[in-house]
Amino acid sequence: MEESIMDASIMDRATAASLITSARIRRGISWEKLATAVDAPLVWTTAALLGAHPMSAEQATAACALLGLDDRVAESLQQQPMRGPDPRLAADPTVYRFTEALAVYGPALKELIHEEFGDGIMSAINFKIDFARRPDPDGDRVVVTFDGKFLDYRW
Amino acid sequence: MEESIMDASIMDRATAASLITSARIRRGISWEKLATAVDAPLVWTTAALLGAHPMSAEQATAACALLGLDDRVAESLQQQPMRGPDPRLAADPTVYRFTEALAVYGPALKELIHEEFGDGIMSAINFKIDFARRPDPDGDRVVVTFDGKFLDYRW
Amino acid sequence: MEESIMDASIMDRATAASLITSARIRRGISWEKLATAVDAPLVWTTAALLGAHPMSAEQATAACALLGLDDRVAESLQQQPMRGPDPRLAADPTVYRFTEALAVYGPALKELIHEEFGDGIMSAINFKIDFARRPDPDGDRVVVTFDGKFLDYRW
Amino acid sequence: MEESIMDASIMDRATAASLITSARIRRGISWEKLATAVDAPLVWTTAALLGAHPMSAEQATAACALLGLDDRVAESLQQQPMRGPDPRLAADPTVYRFTEALAVYGPALKELIHEEFGDGIMSAINFKIDFARRPDPDGDRVVVTFDGKFLDYRW
Amino acid sequence: MEESIMDASIMDRATAASLITSARIRRGISWEKLATAVDAPLVWTTAALLGAHPMSAEQATAACALLGLDDRVAESLQQQPMRGPDPRLAADPTVYRFTEALAVYGPALKELIHEEFGDGIMSAINFKIDFARRPDPDGDRVVVTFDGKFLDYRW
Amino acid sequence: MEESIMDASIMDRATAASLITSARIRRGISWEKLATAVDAPLVWTTAALLGAHPMSAEQATAACALLGLDDRVAESLQQQPMRGPDPRLAADPTVYRFTEALAVYGPALKELIHEEFGDGIMSAINFKIDFARRPDPDGDRVVVTFDGKFLDYRW
Amino acid sequence: MEESIMDASIMDRATAASLITSARIRRGISWEKLATAVDAPLVWTTAALLGAHPMSAEQATAACALLGLDDRVAESLQQQPMRGPDPRLAADPTVYRFTEALAVYGPALKELIHEEFGDGIMSAINFKIDFARRPDPDGDRVVVTFDGKFLDYRW
Amino acid sequence: MEESIMDASIMDRATAASLITSARIRRGISWEKLATAVDAPLVWTTAALLGAHPMSAEQATAACALLGLDDRVAESLQQQPMRGPDPRLAADPTVYRFTEALAVYGPALKELIHEEFGDGIMSAINFKIDFARRPDPDGDRVVVTFDGKFLDYRW
Amino acid sequence: MEESIMDASIMDRATAASLITSARIRRGISWEKLATAVDAPLVWTTAALLGAHPMSAEQATAACALLGLDDRVAESLQQQPMRGPDPRLAADPTVYRFTEALAVYGPALKELIHEEFGDGIMSAINFKIDFARRPDPDGDRVVVTFDGKFLDYRW
Amino acid sequence: MEESIMDASIMDRATAASLITSARIRRGISWEKLATAVDAPLVWTTAALLGAHPMSAEQATAACALLGLDDRVAESLQQQPMRGPDPRLAADPTVYRFTEALAVYGPALKELIHEEFGDGIMSAINFKIDFARRPDPDGDRVVVTFDGKFLDYRW
Repeated sequence: MEESIMDASIMDRATAASLITSARIRRGISWEKLATAVDAPLVWTTAALLGAHPMSAEQATAACALLGLDDRVAESLQQQPMRGPDPRLAADPTVYRFTEALAVYGPALKELIHEEFGDGIMSAINFKIDFARRPDPDGDRVVVTFDGKFLDYRW
Repeated sequence: MEESIMDASIMDRATAASLITSARIRRGISWEKLATAVDAPLVWTTAALLGAHPMSAEQATAACALLGLDDRVAESLQQQPMRGPDPRLAADPTVYRFTEALAVYGPALKELIHEEFGDGIMSAINFKIDFARRPDPDGDRVVVTFDGKFLDYRW
Repeated sequence: MEESIMDASIMDRATAASLITSARIRRGISWEKLATAVDAPLVWTTAALLGAHPMSAEQATAACALLGLDDRVAESLQQQPMRGPDPRLAADPTVYRFTEALAVYGPALKELIHEEFGDGIMSAINFKIDFARRPDPDGDRVVVTFDGKFLDYRW
Repeated sequence: MEESIMDASIMDRATAASLITSARIRRGISWEKLATAVDAPLVWTTAALLGAHPMSAEQATAACALLGLDDRVAESLQQQPMRGPDPRLAADPTVYRFTEALAVYGPALKELIHEEFGDGIMSAINFKIDFARRPDPDGDRVVVTFDGKFLDYRW
Repeated sequence: MEESIMDASIMDRATAASLITSARIRRGISWEKLATAVDAPLVWTTAALLGAHPMSAEQATAACALLGLDDRVAESLQQQPMRGPDPRLAADPTVYRFTEALAVYGPALKELIHEEFGDGIMSAINFKIDFARRPDPDGDRVVVTFDGKFLDYRW
Repeated sequence: MEESIMDASIMDRATAASLITSARIRRGISWEKLATAVDAPLVWTTAALLGAHPMSAEQATAACALLGLDDRVAESLQQQPMRGPDPRLAADPTVYRFTEALAVYGPALKELIHEEFGDGIMSAINFKIDFARRPDPDGDRVVVTFDGKFLDYRW
Repeated sequence: MEESIMDASIMDRATAASLITSARIRRGISWEKLATAVDAPLVWTTAALLGAHPMSAEQATAACALLGLDDRVAESLQQQPMRGPDPRLAADPTVYRFTEALAVYGPALKELIHEEFGDGIMSAINFKIDFARRPDPDGDRVVVTFDGKFLDYRW
Repeated sequence: MEESIMDASIMDRATAASLITSARIRRGISWEKLATAVDAPLVWTTAALLGAHPMSAEQATAACALLGLDDRVAESLQQQPMRGPDPRLAADPTVYRFTEALAVYGPALKELIHEEFGDGIMSAINFKIDFARRPDPDGDRVVVTFDGKFLDYRW
Repeated sequence: MEESIMDASIMDRATAASLITSARIRRGISWEKLATAVDAPLVWTTAALLGAHPMSAEQATAACALLGLDDRVAESLQQQPMRGPDPRLAADPTVYRFTEALAVYGPALKELIHEEFGDGIMSAINFKIDFARRPDPDGDRVVVTFDGKFLDYRW
Repeated sequence: MEESIMDASIMDRATAASLITSARIRRGISWEKLATAVDAPLVWTTAALLGAHPMSAEQATAACALLGLDDRVAESLQQQPMRGPDPRLAADPTVYRFTEALAVYGPALKELIHEEFGDGIMSAINFKIDFARRPDPDGDRVVVTFDGKFLDYRW
């Protein structure tokens, strides 16, 4: 793309995410520390910096200050993103295990949601997700909690 | 298929699951009650009866006794299943919301797992999943917890 | 499938929908009349009888009485459905025009929703849809209204 | 692409849309204000500026004047576009909810169109689409109306 | 499917098409003769009998009388069809050549339609298609004419 | 790509098509006028300039002279193209209507070709295609004629 | 399918092919012997009996007599087939090797056809294919020859 | 890519193929003449220069000398390629006719290979392919011979 | 399928595999014991009984005798199979782990094969595969060995 | 991408792999020699340098020193990769043979794993893979061993 067109465009979220990831590693800043700077939950902050949520101007500025990134990145972080799956990521073993668990347990979750709540869904919008490490003598465990408001089909 | 071939074959897990679902509804038996009869966790029991896990002979017999189903179903429930996604289920809104949450938060989970644990994955085999309803004044919530042993890439 | 297995299974929603469609045509009963019998909105009733929503026992019985269908159909109509696209239907010209309109106007709707409401979505669960014919001297028009509660991304 | 080839080509619609979106945000101009400048309906204007419709020279010039964009953008906006779905957008939750609603209600719409109008379709060409916010004490609602001329299969 | 369910359902269009094709061959009746009996254009009649259009009661009865088929077929022919591509047919060489021609000449047709008519489409609904054999000393030719009303994008 | 590699490569047909389209619009030259300059049929010329056919040196030079394009474009136009569908174009409504017509009428065309000619196909190589506007009081019509030599399966 | 509907339908080509293959093996009849009985080339006869070509009444009767199959099969063999790939067969290693060879050498064949013949194709309709075993001290070889008339793009 | 990274990388085979094709056309050198210079069979040489086989240093140098291409191209031609289908090429009519022939005759070839040789495959590695023009009064013919060693399934 | 058609057809390999699997479980016969009866390697025997290889008459009879299955199964086991992936199996976690290992290590295997052997492949036809359990204090291990003849690209 | 953005980003693993492959060939360094320098197993080292595993700082520096590559490459090699299949590589004949072997023997491996170990999988994470050449008078053989810890489904 021509230089002038690039200057006239707001930086896309993927470029911003790549700059953030690189700066984070080079400066040795943890996601936790970024979450503290941004004053938001850990998973939300990580997701937002990787491009899944818009940040407020204050949050974007705080994150960029910590990472030594300029205003173009902070401007980008405030943009409404296009959300959606990255097909390459879906086959990465770390992410694939979640998908496999859904393939195995998805039918059971559907049955249990409808038995307990009736006809409807767990919202993925009014929703939060938690990540934790649970020590275990047989090997520590990854614990991820999906927590969404039940929405009933309501005409 | 010819009658004689059908008699000579063990009933497939999908047919067993359909009979179980029908009997469960007609007899008004909850998944919880089935889990108690089978003496196993709720999500595991539901998944197993829907075809995702083999049951022991005792578990299969107990479930079928409660549901009034015959030995062919109990035999089927002890078979090793083929596991995997049902493409029709994947687009069902109740199940799709979990997939959407993974599309939005998958990259963040990957980052956080690697930061916390190093290079590796959450196991989907040494793994359990929990389902709960959490009362909330703004509307009760569906809470689903993925809990798997961390496995590091180890040569 | 063996006769006995079929008797032991609740009729699937697709078979029920096919019997309903056939009885409706042979008896000359309009969808409007069915909606009145069921005492529910027109599009909801049509969708439910075609398999997209569970009905109450009263609704199912009323619809089957009007159509001369037996209890197995009424039982089927009360089941929780698996919802999702029928790939064959998606290419039918009558349905495809809606898909094409979304392809052309989807980006604009996304922009306008975010400008007006902020970051979030129109719910497809707390949602209703209306169908109407609007007379027009240049040819009557099909008017379909999507009406869903706005849900903001809320952690 | 070489500079000289780029100069000899009319700017593609996607580049123009990206410049428009960036300028709109930096200057703080609403889609409504752009629609007024262009003197056209809101959804049409938004769609056209994003690349779904060709604009007249007057419309293109008016929009670019407001946005501070040069003649190359205005020239681009007058080009006949290639329309069609953006696969990435289709999985974005904001747009996906419309697709899901069609999956659930598409069969009902087909039945109702044919019952009311006979064999034919709602045109997506002789067609308009309306976007509105409807205040509601339970949470404001997104209301989108599809309004297309009925075309009967006519040999 | 159970006998009783089959009796209670209107015969699907694909079964009707298969019975029509078989009877046509066994009785040696040309598509032209069927078109005459039905009093409709050749391609329309062939398409309708193969399942692409609903017939009037008179047309369906006339076709079935000529073919010696019973009332269940005639009833089926009056049903509103689901239209759409048959993926197996798409790769058949006889049909594939049309698809290939569109792949080669589609961009040119789009350019010429827009240059001649402005922004819009050739309707595939207000549309007819003609089939003819044109004698040619170098080998007779298949001549197929698409003839559809131009519809301009009109808000 | 490096400048030197670009100089050493013949310009690809897609780049040439983009330059031709831009020059055609800026200079206000119709496809008809280009066909006259090239001394070839209208659809053939349009398709060839868009990249579907190789041109002779005379034809390429004549077209480029009219459009004010240099020798690199004329050289490109003489290259043997790779033909084939552009997946993005296939979903454009203007082109999609042709595809939809084939989905609806393809089975009928196959039946009629085999009844009239026996086993074989309409050639898409020994083939021409015609585009015309037919005035009609109910709205002018797009008329496109496919005309290909019949080839019988001949061992 | 009901018995009566099956009687009223001509047997489909796939069922006929399955009966032919079974009878051929049980009676120990080679494809060569079938080709002699049918008085046609080896590959053509094999392909026709497997469903790729219609046979004359004489050919069909001769093949069925040799195989001890009844008139319903002979009737089926005279039907115009739908031709096209069987996706399951495409991944069978015996067939896949041909596909792989085309993937490796297809670009070279395209270049050489155009250099030698100009713009056009090898016909797959005016076409024959030969199969032979060539003894070789290093292991006998499969030799398959594609032989099709060159067709130039001719408007 | 940065200049320095490009210098540090061996030129990829696709870039080399594009430079070779361009130089071949501009210098008017036939594939046959290249095969002679390289001292290898015609189809092999064409395939190798297009990227399907590695060349020896002598072969690469000889080809580049004839075409006036520099050492970076010769170095590239000696690299081990990644082989595999080009999806765009697969739909090009010239290449598609080979694929169609395999769709029609693949099942017959499988039957004949197994009848003649037993269980196994034609190798696509110990394999050669020949291209020839056969004069014919009804139109010259493209003759392509696949010739591969039979490999039996041998444990 | 009609009874008479089923009798006239050789049982397909998938039905045979289902009967074998059921009989094996009901009679409590291990794959190892079947391999001994058949006098062939363990993985080969398992694969052959599941439908991947034809058996000799002696092998088929021996296996069926042990399993108490009749001649129709033994006849089926001697048929040449169609080999190829079962898409449902590919997503089963037990099988998927092999696919994932190939995704991660495939590029390395390609590099190492070419470095060690030159240009060519590991044959999957002149090939055997071994399965073993290796005791390990940290948990026993699955050890699977692929062992195929190297085939060099040889014209 | 702009120069400054490229400087601010850590080099992606694919670019690093391309530089490593080029330097390895130009300097004539074997994978074995790289494995020795890195002090790690052969397949692991090859996979890691091609982008499938993160390296320690020492390993990355040792490899880059041997290859004459700068710090940006060494920094890249320490990054956590996204793992997953390269669709182009999957169709390369050298890699495809492994996939084909899994298609043929995958069902047998699943049966044997479950018979020997019970319900569970071979880990692809606690996993190693070995590559060897085994001399054989009939042609040397490629021997690849998959060796992974068995993980039982454990709630």
